[in-house]
Amino acid sequence: MITHLEDINKAFESKVRLGIMSVLMVNDEADFNTLKELLGLTDGNLASHTRALENLKYIKAKKQFVGRKPKTTYSRTKEGEKAFQDHLQALEAFLKNNL
Amino acid sequence: MITHLEDINKAFESKVRLGIMSVLMVNDEADFNTLKELLGLTDGNLASHTRALENLKYIKAKKQFVGRKPKTTYSRTKEGEKAFQDHLQALEAFLKNNL
Repeated sequence: MITHLEDINKAFESKVRLGIMSVLMVNDEADFNTLKELLGLTDGNLASHTRALENLKYIKAKKQFVGRKPKTTYSRTKEGEKAFQDHLQALEAFLKNNL
Repeated sequence: MITHLEDINKAFESKVRLGIMSVLMVNDEADFNTLKELLGLTDGNLASHTRALENLKYIKAKKQFVGRKPKTTYSRTKEGEKAFQDHLQALEAFLKNNL
């Protein structure tokens, strides 16, 4: 199989997005603070990447109030799951051919 | 920063190993059957990759008996954690420079 770098999904080039998607593949849901702690990020950094993945429809956010505190919980979409699996496949093939 | 493909850790080129390490970064421990289900693998396929990662000292296995059934639980090592983080860093840098 010939694999080109173009098959790799630019949406997942960042370590943070790889991390977010990995967590949401392993866990059906994760809230903002859990992602923040697991990935060791600041609020702003995490928020900008979750927003980008939401805009791509790869993850979706559910907003609730727990008492008076807002809580945002993320989950992968079907589309995101497929895109991420395709990306890992392309990445693996590319690395196997080029390392 | 100039990043070359050589900075990417060949141990993690496989999607399966990327999956095992991702699960063990998110969860401190995971047993064989949990990994198998999360990653959708056969026993043989998972075993060959956990063995490879154990040989590299990137993960460690704890074997117990639960009743009469053997149970193997895996966790990342400090070395594995560092190697995986370095790999993701190198991968991100490489992709940013080349996509």
